[in-house]
Amino acid sequence: MTVSSKPAINSFTVMNELVFPNDTNPLHNLMGGRLLHLMDIAAAISAQKHSNHIVVTASVDNVSFKHPVKLGDVITIQAKVTRSFHTSMEIRIEVFSENIQPNSRIKSNEAYYTFVALDDTGKTTLVPEIIPETEEEKQLYITALSRRELRLILAGKMKPENATQLKALFFPEL
Amino acid sequence: MTVSSKPAINSFTVMNELVFPNDTNPLHNLMGGRLLHLMDIAAAISAQKHSNHIVVTASVDNVSFKHPVKLGDVITIQAKVTRSFHTSMEIRIEVFSENIQPNSRIKSNEAYYTFVALDDTGKTTLVPEIIPETEEEKQLYITALSRRELRLILAGKMKPENATQLKALFFPEL
Amino acid sequence: MTVSSKPAINSFTVMNELVFPNDTNPLHNLMGGRLLHLMDIAAAISAQKHSNHIVVTASVDNVSFKHPVKLGDVITIQAKVTRSFHTSMEIRIEVFSENIQPNSRIKSNEAYYTFVALDDTGKTTLVPEIIPETEEEKQLYITALSRRELRLILAGKMKPENATQLKALFFPEL
Amino acid sequence: MTVSSKPAINSFTVMNELVFPNDTNPLHNLMGGRLLHLMDIAAAISAQKHSNHIVVTASVDNVSFKHPVKLGDVITIQAKVTRSFHTSMEIRIEVFSENIQPNSRIKSNEAYYTFVALDDTGKTTLVPEIIPETEEEKQLYITALSRRELRLILAGKMKPENATQLKALFFPEL
Amino acid sequence: MTVSSKPAINSFTVMNELVFPNDTNPLHNLMGGRLLHLMDIAAAISAQKHSNHIVVTASVDNVSFKHPVKLGDVITIQAKVTRSFHTSMEIRIEVFSENIQPNSRIKSNEAYYTFVALDDTGKTTLVPEIIPETEEEKQLYITALSRRELRLILAGKMKPENATQLKALFFPEL
Amino acid sequence: MTVSSKPAINSFTVMNELVFPNDTNPLHNLMGGRLLHLMDIAAAISAQKHSNHIVVTASVDNVSFKHPVKLGDVITIQAKVTRSFHTSMEIRIEVFSENIQPNSRIKSNEAYYTFVALDDTGKTTLVPEIIPETEEEKQLYITALSRRELRLILAGKMKPENATQLKALFFPEL
Repeated sequence: MTVSSKPAINSFTVMNELVFPNDTNPLHNLMGGRLLHLMDIAAAISAQKHSNHIVVTASVDNVSFKHPVKLGDVITIQAKVTRSFHTSMEIRIEVFSENIQPNSRIKSNEAYYTFVALDDTGKTTLVPEIIPETEEEKQLYITALSRRELRLILAGKMKPENATQLKALFFPEL
Repeated sequence: MTVSSKPAINSFTVMNELVFPNDTNPLHNLMGGRLLHLMDIAAAISAQKHSNHIVVTASVDNVSFKHPVKLGDVITIQAKVTRSFHTSMEIRIEVFSENIQPNSRIKSNEAYYTFVALDDTGKTTLVPEIIPETEEEKQLYITALSRRELRLILAGKMKPENATQLKALFFPEL
Repeated sequence: MTVSSKPAINSFTVMNELVFPNDTNPLHNLMGGRLLHLMDIAAAISAQKHSNHIVVTASVDNVSFKHPVKLGDVITIQAKVTRSFHTSMEIRIEVFSENIQPNSRIKSNEAYYTFVALDDTGKTTLVPEIIPETEEEKQLYITALSRRELRLILAGKMKPENATQLKALFFPEL
Repeated sequence: MTVSSKPAINSFTVMNELVFPNDTNPLHNLMGGRLLHLMDIAAAISAQKHSNHIVVTASVDNVSFKHPVKLGDVITIQAKVTRSFHTSMEIRIEVFSENIQPNSRIKSNEAYYTFVALDDTGKTTLVPEIIPETEEEKQLYITALSRRELRLILAGKMKPENATQLKALFFPEL
Repeated sequence: MTVSSKPAINSFTVMNELVFPNDTNPLHNLMGGRLLHLMDIAAAISAQKHSNHIVVTASVDNVSFKHPVKLGDVITIQAKVTRSFHTSMEIRIEVFSENIQPNSRIKSNEAYYTFVALDDTGKTTLVPEIIPETEEEKQLYITALSRRELRLILAGKMKPENATQLKALFFPEL
Repeated sequence: MTVSSKPAINSFTVMNELVFPNDTNPLHNLMGGRLLHLMDIAAAISAQKHSNHIVVTASVDNVSFKHPVKLGDVITIQAKVTRSFHTSMEIRIEVFSENIQPNSRIKSNEAYYTFVALDDTGKTTLVPEIIPETEEEKQLYITALSRRELRLILAGKMKPENATQLKALFFPEL
């Protein structure tokens, strides 16, 4: 079976959302878990566009929440596939938030989700390769390898000493 | 200001949830992002019980999704604070799922969330120390240090060469 | 067909929930109907654990709401099967609520739901007997009979003069 | 302070609702707790119309669920205040359901909710008397007394031997 | 196949709804889109009652929002079929809102939705004629023609010069 | 008070959404009212970006639904302000839907919403002029006048004989 390659940009997905009362905690800040949920939906749409298959979340990498997002703010979630690995894809998510004031937009989060493509019977299936075109896409394509090694170590599927990419990234002096 | 210590067990929180149609994808599997949302709520309740303060999500560590959870399944989310770091807490989450069949319960996920405690003005505030009592709690209390180092590295707040705990964990031969 | 007996504790179910804005009235109190909905879900999970069958609500007994539960409070719903009657089960629900202050937990409600077990074709099916073990479980097992009589009278399925348990409970002097 | 009387019909409230997927169990039946939630909203609107005050649920009487309501069915909830007791009101709820077939409408449930009226500071406040006009309204106005006695007994606020109305209803031979 | 006629009143549908926090914008006003959603549900129930078929929205006419509806207000949506056109129906929607004060009810919106009836295979199917009985129903039955012409022009399905009813309505001097 | 002009493109807003079970009717098609709700949110974000003020829906023009959108489809909603009129703005909405198959994207709907800008006290406030740049934006800027005339006629605020733009559009031969 031949799997064609597709440019990363084809999977680009944008979601704008208003922060509603039920999304917030008693300080009227967007709850982290609600944002993770929205990011997952954006990533799923992006992975589905790339693979033309049903996709399911395989993992989410470490996400940190530095900037509170407030009730009534607009959040913009951008998703794009960075690289595929046979039946899985890594999707980069960037989150921006802005309030009603001019020029208030800031980048509030970024994250990497991985999704697996399934066929109609629920079995994993091959996905197209990614063709990175911009400088940023090329950089993300390369660094996807070390992020994957860290994921495999944390999931107990790779021994740290075999994580050559990650070791070079973390401890280049070794 | 004196901050008392509290046993880990005081923060123990259990959520049982039914998987409803709107939580699922077209294969009738629970969406990963919806589970991350529920885990965040459980972690927030646990962190609030420990700190007696409003809490906000600071980060979630890598989470992987190995077992599909189906429409109609019961999921059980257990949360407990493992260790506190001045104004933040690490919460361990375990997720179990079971269907209607006897003895069908399996562990489907685990994760570590960190939360920060805020006072009424929205400023970070100190939280009690954790007193680990069981063997598992003591083990989680110790390993919390290396998980924290990894979090700080990934957030760009610590240089890998200073992550002594993590280095010993990943590359003990160095 | 043999139906095994199971200890009451096997059906024990705990749900912790945060009170979100959409759950509240204009005074920021949890609406009674929303709580009845959450109690029904907890009872359904408990009844499903006991019966290993799909279950549907058959009735809810009188529930009173004495203590307002506020936006942002944590509610803890505990459910356990008290007794089974061929194809139906009585489930006792206790609701506790607490705010962010230490030692603020109070018992806010209790209720009895009954559920019926159905097989795959939607017909009622036998459920295991309950083995009460603690003193409280034994007491609830006994008093389930008079609660059932009241339910049958109110549903027009039993004449009050035949409700011997209930008559003894209400009017012991007769 | 003078409290005017108002006809029962002034509080009449009708809600038509479609049964959506998230309201149903795996057999595609409306969950009992979801219906209790909708009934509570209808009762609250009715009590608010009668009292012109914020109202909160005080209790719900025994409700039984005899007829399954299916996904896609239309449910019609009718609410009307039957009688007021100083600061509280009893509301009668009737639920009808119908599917897409002609003449498929059946009465699926009935229930009695009680609500308490609150002023702006959250304190209980007097509500108008009910003027029953139809035969059914007059009957419900009278029988409200024995339902109230049962409620008070079940809430531990009245001794059974003092429940003269209820005793006459249940055990007329005594 | 014979299609019977049915009085307009048979399709009359009333929905009372409370405005909840998640339905509102930061000024605590009901969002227009949420009201359009509720009106669509009321119209669908009305069209289903008239046709005894599954119905899908074909169009909504111009709707304007003049009166803000506030958090906690009660909205009453009334729907009734005005006329049928082979496989489609026009439904008139009126929206009233009231707050907790006596005599506060005002008419806040009106709209016309059209729905198409579908058989079990998803194909359009004939619906009964409408029998208008009241003066208002008769007037709406007649004016339905010019509203339909405007709809067809706006959808690009009719040339304006053929819209004789509409032309007479808009420009009677021509 | 000087009100600056802003390019139309600055208000461009994209929402990608998955169609979830609760958004659908029994044929598993997206309900029209749910789509109107999502379009309103997209339009509100676009109007807020342009005006830097709180905005409320003033009207929605005729919307027709020609193509069924199915459960699991991805819908893409694009919104952009076409022209402002003192304190109000017209926003054009385009909706595209696609399923999992390659090249399945179709345009399913388009609509025009108008929003009014409010200051912090809830009073209407001036919004910037629109600078149309592309050919399409210039065309929409011009035709906004006749759409506005139709809106004013339908709202009873303009006599048809004064609607010179609309008359020229509909009946150019007059």
